[in-house]
Amino acid sequence: MELTDQAALTSGSAFWKTTAAGDVPAITLTDGPHGVRLQSDAGDMLAGRPATCFPPAVASGSTWDPELLRRMGEALGDECRAMDVQVLLGPGINLKRTPLGGRNFEYFSEDPILSGVLATEWVRGLQSKGVGASLKHFAVNSQETDRMIVSAEVDERTLRELYLRAFQRVVTQAQPWTVMCAYNKVNGVYASQHHWLLTEVLRDEWGFEGLVVSDWGAVVDRVAALAAGLDLTMPGPDDAGDAVVASSVRDGKLPAEVLETAVARIRALVEKSVSATGTYDAEAHHALAREIAARAIVLLKNDDILPLRTEGQSVAVLGEFARTPRYQGGGSSQITPTRLDDALTEITATTTAPVRFAPGYRTDNDAADETLIAEAAALAAGSDVAVVFVGTTRETEGADRTDLDLPEAHLALIERVVAANPRTVVVLNNGAVVRTAPWDASVPGVVEAWLLGQAGGSAIADVLFGRVNPSGRLAETIPLKLSDHPSYLDFPGEAGFVRYGEGLHVGYRGFDAREQPVSYPFGFGLSYTTFAYGEASATAGAESVDITVPITNTGGRDGREVVQVYVAKPDSRVRRAPRELKGFATVDLAAGATATVTVRIPRDDLAYWDTRLNRWLVEDGGYVFAVGASSRDLRTTVTLAVPGSPDARWPLVAHSTVAEWMADPRGAQLLRDAFAAGSDSPLVSMAGDDGPYELLGGMPLDRLALFPGSPFTLDTVDKLVEQANA
Amino acid sequence: MELTDQAALTSGSAFWKTTAAGDVPAITLTDGPHGVRLQSDAGDMLAGRPATCFPPAVASGSTWDPELLRRMGEALGDECRAMDVQVLLGPGINLKRTPLGGRNFEYFSEDPILSGVLATEWVRGLQSKGVGASLKHFAVNSQETDRMIVSAEVDERTLRELYLRAFQRVVTQAQPWTVMCAYNKVNGVYASQHHWLLTEVLRDEWGFEGLVVSDWGAVVDRVAALAAGLDLTMPGPDDAGDAVVASSVRDGKLPAEVLETAVARIRALVEKSVSATGTYDAEAHHALAREIAARAIVLLKNDDILPLRTEGQSVAVLGEFARTPRYQGGGSSQITPTRLDDALTEITATTTAPVRFAPGYRTDNDAADETLIAEAAALAAGSDVAVVFVGTTRETEGADRTDLDLPEAHLALIERVVAANPRTVVVLNNGAVVRTAPWDASVPGVVEAWLLGQAGGSAIADVLFGRVNPSGRLAETIPLKLSDHPSYLDFPGEAGFVRYGEGLHVGYRGFDAREQPVSYPFGFGLSYTTFAYGEASATAGAESVDITVPITNTGGRDGREVVQVYVAKPDSRVRRAPRELKGFATVDLAAGATATVTVRIPRDDLAYWDTRLNRWLVEDGGYVFAVGASSRDLRTTVTLAVPGSPDARWPLVAHSTVAEWMADPRGAQLLRDAFAAGSDSPLVSMAGDDGPYELLGGMPLDRLALFPGSPFTLDTVDKLVEQANA
Repeated sequence: MELTDQAALTSGSAFWKTTAAGDVPAITLTDGPHGVRLQSDAGDMLAGRPATCFPPAVASGSTWDPELLRRMGEALGDECRAMDVQVLLGPGINLKRTPLGGRNFEYFSEDPILSGVLATEWVRGLQSKGVGASLKHFAVNSQETDRMIVSAEVDERTLRELYLRAFQRVVTQAQPWTVMCAYNKVNGVYASQHHWLLTEVLRDEWGFEGLVVSDWGAVVDRVAALAAGLDLTMPGPDDAGDAVVASSVRDGKLPAEVLETAVARIRALVEKSVSATGTYDAEAHHALAREIAARAIVLLKNDDILPLRTEGQSVAVLGEFARTPRYQGGGSSQITPTRLDDALTEITATTTAPVRFAPGYRTDNDAADETLIAEAAALAAGSDVAVVFVGTTRETEGADRTDLDLPEAHLALIERVVAANPRTVVVLNNGAVVRTAPWDASVPGVVEAWLLGQAGGSAIADVLFGRVNPSGRLAETIPLKLSDHPSYLDFPGEAGFVRYGEGLHVGYRGFDAREQPVSYPFGFGLSYTTFAYGEASATAGAESVDITVPITNTGGRDGREVVQVYVAKPDSRVRRAPRELKGFATVDLAAGATATVTVRIPRDDLAYWDTRLNRWLVEDGGYVFAVGASSRDLRTTVTLAVPGSPDARWPLVAHSTVAEWMADPRGAQLLRDAFAAGSDSPLVSMAGDDGPYELLGGMPLDRLALFPGSPFTLDTVDKLVEQANA
Repeated sequence: MELTDQAALTSGSAFWKTTAAGDVPAITLTDGPHGVRLQSDAGDMLAGRPATCFPPAVASGSTWDPELLRRMGEALGDECRAMDVQVLLGPGINLKRTPLGGRNFEYFSEDPILSGVLATEWVRGLQSKGVGASLKHFAVNSQETDRMIVSAEVDERTLRELYLRAFQRVVTQAQPWTVMCAYNKVNGVYASQHHWLLTEVLRDEWGFEGLVVSDWGAVVDRVAALAAGLDLTMPGPDDAGDAVVASSVRDGKLPAEVLETAVARIRALVEKSVSATGTYDAEAHHALAREIAARAIVLLKNDDILPLRTEGQSVAVLGEFARTPRYQGGGSSQITPTRLDDALTEITATTTAPVRFAPGYRTDNDAADETLIAEAAALAAGSDVAVVFVGTTRETEGADRTDLDLPEAHLALIERVVAANPRTVVVLNNGAVVRTAPWDASVPGVVEAWLLGQAGGSAIADVLFGRVNPSGRLAETIPLKLSDHPSYLDFPGEAGFVRYGEGLHVGYRGFDAREQPVSYPFGFGLSYTTFAYGEASATAGAESVDITVPITNTGGRDGREVVQVYVAKPDSRVRRAPRELKGFATVDLAAGATATVTVRIPRDDLAYWDTRLNRWLVEDGGYVFAVGASSRDLRTTVTLAVPGSPDARWPLVAHSTVAEWMADPRGAQLLRDAFAAGSDSPLVSMAGDDGPYELLGGMPLDRLALFPGSPFTLDTVDKLVEQANA
């Protein structure tokens, strides 16, 4: 292939199309992730043809149900094929570092295992239809503020264990056809030209076989991006950039094989792509959207008010969102739905009792409107029960939120409605968590209904009236207040830098480490029935640990429990969060039934990233597996010894400190002997009764040897090192 | 001078002596900072000749009284001269980043202004006697764990505003003869070879005229240290190192003028040093130590129990620390006192009523001893009042603490004594804060008596019986629990790195930013009288702001108030702590008297470090000055407009984002016009009703210009930049 054709292939020909060059035809990539947004208007890149608007990831993540995600992926694949789309830009699996993240509604969780498990099935489902996924945004794109210039400053262990972990899982388990690089910098280097990320980690370590595409506009330097491992720059055309690529190869500034490799990957992608048009079963997809949406709803509070009765209980439906659904966020993921359910219609259709509606607020003004509120309060007073729909009025790609509070108008509406009728249920529609304290104390029913996609209205009615027994679980913590959040002091950063100061302690890991109260913890969600946990047991296999626990539905309704396993390593030699989600399972149980649930935890998920040895490492010894219904509702615990990784010992060198020597059994003995032999040294006597180990603990042996009055010499240190590592 | 002599001069000849070479004699440097520890035993570098053990910095810092610090410095100067010491190694002014810092007792505060003001007077006092200070440990040596290998990872703004700020103040205002470099690395570079710290900041920016000496053993590479600006490596001898220095000059690896400059500084130091021996007034120094100690005591709680009566009120004195004072910490600052007051003797001498004593615990075992506790509880039950002495059993250089709790034996003693007699006062002896929750809720009197030096016993009696009306104020926050602390998630780091993840939010700044409750806030301390604050007023001068407030002693006793001024800049364009101490004053007021107190705040102290412009900058506009008795007891507030620094505008460049352009008045107008001119661009329409500014906010103009469908070209951007900066 001509050099110019090769270069041209590495950028798009249009906003959503690759370039056709030589014998390689063009394919279409378009936005997801919770629907297919195929541009319908040449003048508006964000206007899409009708497609099923499935629940955004904030909702699908709350299902904790990989099978639902797989089915969503399959349905999206069908719609892509119907619209001749070859790659759907999703899933988005960035970690929800802060509840303010403007794009949180497109991401699954503050936990990488949950995100990774769900996204893996989504990718498998989509790709089973011959349509490629684009795992995004790689990596550490956890904020919108300054997203194209900010450098996420994050240490390697945190990167490995938190921000890259879900990507690693999806890549190794589902081989997405493409990975999309992020806009931001990671530790000072643009993700689009980050060789360590795009080549060393993604390909060399994880074995990624697909293509790396840029986020739209993420490439700053075409040549640097190619050299780092980015194959396809989008959007296009970028004739000037193509020319620079070609001339760089000609000049020897870019090795020809780098470009050839990128071209080969683009060719491979195009070759496995399917060009097709057709139809799909829109009704079935709507039903699936409804099923997922209902499973996504998290029942936060229920003081004997839910489910509602379908007769004999008049309902005041309050809040414009009941009539005009708030069902997705703004930006590139906005879908033109095939149809749109609203809760008001669905509630009215469900109950035989009177349903009356008042809007309560305007959607274009967050200030409280006394007339609208008074009207709503009056309806509440005259009804048996009030259901108030409130939420965020806008969340969009490109802008982070600045607080967690509901709009003033919505807070006022809740307050006045509850005052008028204490039998009130609040339904929340929001793409990332909102503050529920302190108003939730006075409301007997709180339903977290997220942004639920086009079938959200019917799904809400399903849960309110108990057609679906809620089983959604929080995939992110709801804090008592914003300033409690682990990320609070370090978000959104300044002057082009954001320090990930909480390190490993993202989300619930930080709340737990600080022993902070929260409104609703990670993993939390109520049901209309109750579940009892028996005693957990653990079995170790070569590659995994099985945690088994009997679960009984002790209530009067069929229901679904999400059994969660959190792991702790209390005697770890490195700092760890108090507990980390490592596995989970959903189980459907008829009233009174018992089932034995087994959660398999891959041994690899017990590993931490050792920065001294530069690899994943499973520590030897006892792990505590706590099983429960949320991260703070742990019902049964079992400890199991797991054999550690080989060669886990930290090396002792001349520059290791006295404390490091003392922490190593063999090193400690050797050093004690050396100190005893040099006990007339003034340094040893200086240390006093506690021995030299503490006062001198921070001193590297080679520095101690050079100290006047040292108990030993550099020669002794060399011998100690030799003996320690013999 | 011969090259070999030059080289030899740059290292010590012994543990506490410089080298005599050529015509330069040797001088003696020895440990402080709260006493002169001149080695008395050749075999034990830490055994010292008797000297006055003044209150360690944890206590002197709590006086908030610069004049006391100056007098301490003068007294130390007298003792140095009496012992032929030319440089005293102090003051230590590292910020108390964490309450666990093993050496916190040697440092003043978690606030840099308080530390800087106090240390400045200490240095002035010492140097007024012709004895040099050694300002230490420069810089960011805020932990003992791995202190010789750990890299403190801290952003420049935090460095400038917090960790370097006190050093800057002392250097510019008091010109210490020497500055001592720290053991640790700062952002990856050893402080001992950190050119930016030792030369660019310390000398070029701050105008330091003295000598940089290493902490003992801090130099890893003699040549690199010299090149960075370190003049004197201690201790010595280091003949091998001297030879490397000489040969490096010969080989041209080290410029000869670098070595010559170091030698010139050493010569200058030696030339201004005074060799003398003599005596000092040990009784007067003891009296001064007692005065400072009494002023250092912080009355934390007093529910009508203090002061004690000197007659008719029998006292149970409980706890071994009353008999065997705990008065200083371990490590290099340990002083052999000239005498030692104990509280038991002083209490007994003060009251005519019966005083009975029980030790309550052993000092060599932290476990509760039932026999000792029962004996103490019985004495408490049979006395009118119980005074329980508890505290930390050891704090030492070289080791950080691992928790904030009192020893188990002490906690058990408090509990049992209070149960036996609710009329209980707890006296705390500790070098850094201990947890007082939850036991303090059941104790009517809590006295924070720190480590008070050799006269602590009499000072405690002075305060308990009201001979001194307490006026100490907390120079560090007492948290409810360790995990609340801003540093908690990032201390002590791992594998050679400690991330200062809380950034600017050190100590009370973090607690305030997170709106966290604490046990006792920064600046807190009670008196036996009460003070009323009138209305504050503010006057701006060219170089400072004067805050004036009338203070009235509204109680029945003469007393001293510490008036504190905290500053906020609510509309700041950078993130700031909710309030920062910027000035304070102590005022002695007779019962019923009123005085008008003026606190002068240098304009420079209102500045923040601007990382975009790389300089200190005073923002224009309104500053809120809150005046009160602690950081959380603000009584009166005044807002004053302060003219900003010139040229404060952030530059707009082609790479600045849409959001950055929109934040600049001129840039916003230009950009709006450019968007309007390109309003047929699909990118503009894509952004929807909210305009392009939010969805495209994170996009640099030059990247936007290259985006397909951009509303403008790179040429337009160039013109915009030109117009914006015209």
